[in-house]
Amino acid sequence: MTNDAYTVAHLEADLRTFRDERDWAKFHDPKSLVLALVGEGGELAELFQWIPADEAQAEFSAGRRRERAAEEMADVLIYLVNLADVLGIDLVTSAREKMRVARERFPVERHRGTAPVKT
Amino acid sequence: MTNDAYTVAHLEADLRTFRDERDWAKFHDPKSLVLALVGEGGELAELFQWIPADEAQAEFSAGRRRERAAEEMADVLIYLVNLADVLGIDLVTSAREKMRVARERFPVERHRGTAPVKT
Amino acid sequence: MTNDAYTVAHLEADLRTFRDERDWAKFHDPKSLVLALVGEGGELAELFQWIPADEAQAEFSAGRRRERAAEEMADVLIYLVNLADVLGIDLVTSAREKMRVARERFPVERHRGTAPVKT
Amino acid sequence: MTNDAYTVAHLEADLRTFRDERDWAKFHDPKSLVLALVGEGGELAELFQWIPADEAQAEFSAGRRRERAAEEMADVLIYLVNLADVLGIDLVTSAREKMRVARERFPVERHRGTAPVKT
Repeated sequence: MTNDAYTVAHLEADLRTFRDERDWAKFHDPKSLVLALVGEGGELAELFQWIPADEAQAEFSAGRRRERAAEEMADVLIYLVNLADVLGIDLVTSAREKMRVARERFPVERHRGTAPVKT
Repeated sequence: MTNDAYTVAHLEADLRTFRDERDWAKFHDPKSLVLALVGEGGELAELFQWIPADEAQAEFSAGRRRERAAEEMADVLIYLVNLADVLGIDLVTSAREKMRVARERFPVERHRGTAPVKT
Repeated sequence: MTNDAYTVAHLEADLRTFRDERDWAKFHDPKSLVLALVGEGGELAELFQWIPADEAQAEFSAGRRRERAAEEMADVLIYLVNLADVLGIDLVTSAREKMRVARERFPVERHRGTAPVKT
Repeated sequence: MTNDAYTVAHLEADLRTFRDERDWAKFHDPKSLVLALVGEGGELAELFQWIPADEAQAEFSAGRRRERAAEEMADVLIYLVNLADVLGIDLVTSAREKMRVARERFPVERHRGTAPVKT
């Protein structure tokens, strides 16, 4: 690990310091944090809503729009990590495990090129 | 870096492999990924909706409920990282920067104990 | 029906006029409308996020907060009706049918006082 | 009013009966209802996530997919009306008022053909 590596574990520690310095732990019950998380997800959605689907990647890959998307995505991550802290969940390890399950659930030979459509 | 360290950068690499092995990049335009992200955020919300606010932390800090929350939170993170990959955004660094701004915007002396209520 | 009755059918007609006068139908593909809907749902969530659960009803039942909640709820309804229009769905009838199913799925004698918790 | 007219006011009355027969009012605090609402919004989003944007209207305008979309949209409306009931908000009138404001905010001559992009 190089000195400049900043991981989710570091972010979690920084968020805890930020929260506790302001005595904000009392606001961080799980339901409130989930509302904050979906609130930031909603702000992210609004950035994209009227952009034509086939232009969105180019529009948001540079400049002011990328910056705005990065800010809202950061906010989603921040509340996700705050919630993980409150519940004692190892977020990145959970995602690793989820992908292990997904590899078994969606074998390459059966799912190549086909979206797993929700019904 | 110890051998068991698994970071968001590793997750991003694993997600890319998973996606490309299945030829799913064509589904990963930004608007679709944001819909997937808010979809998982919605599933997370549903886990908590009818649990009394003051019981939620205890209810979701162990056992089956913690596991289910971890799964949905992992899904939110997975789509967040997929989107960051498509847009070329460094997610964790963006969160670090967001917190730097937040520390200036909410100075301790003025915001201790008071929620920054949205209006 | 009294003259002052304004129904979802009237709202749908007004939304169509509003959209077509501005030549905005081209933006109203279903994925864009769903992103707009969840965006407004997110703004609604943000209003409530840091309010203690047991104070929320009183806090939002009058004054500026009720007005803000009404605005965001109106926005959610507006995009819901726009989407219903695009897909040819009768929204209120669908809700009536959904409740008919819910009455069968959650018989009073078995569900009195117990939340149908999602797992 | 013809006999087959079923309005949001009727839906609100039916939802109240449904809720009170089951003694579920205790679960219907605003934060819980907002979590339920965004949960259903998330389920709606999931239906659309992997459908190509330019195929979504056709795909969801008939058959099983339209039915599923109608169900999730009905659920969003149901929680919106439950929340309106708890807060004493007249939902459809609020939407009518919101559109009055929108007509002034987005004059036809200045906004024809141009999306009001969020930044």
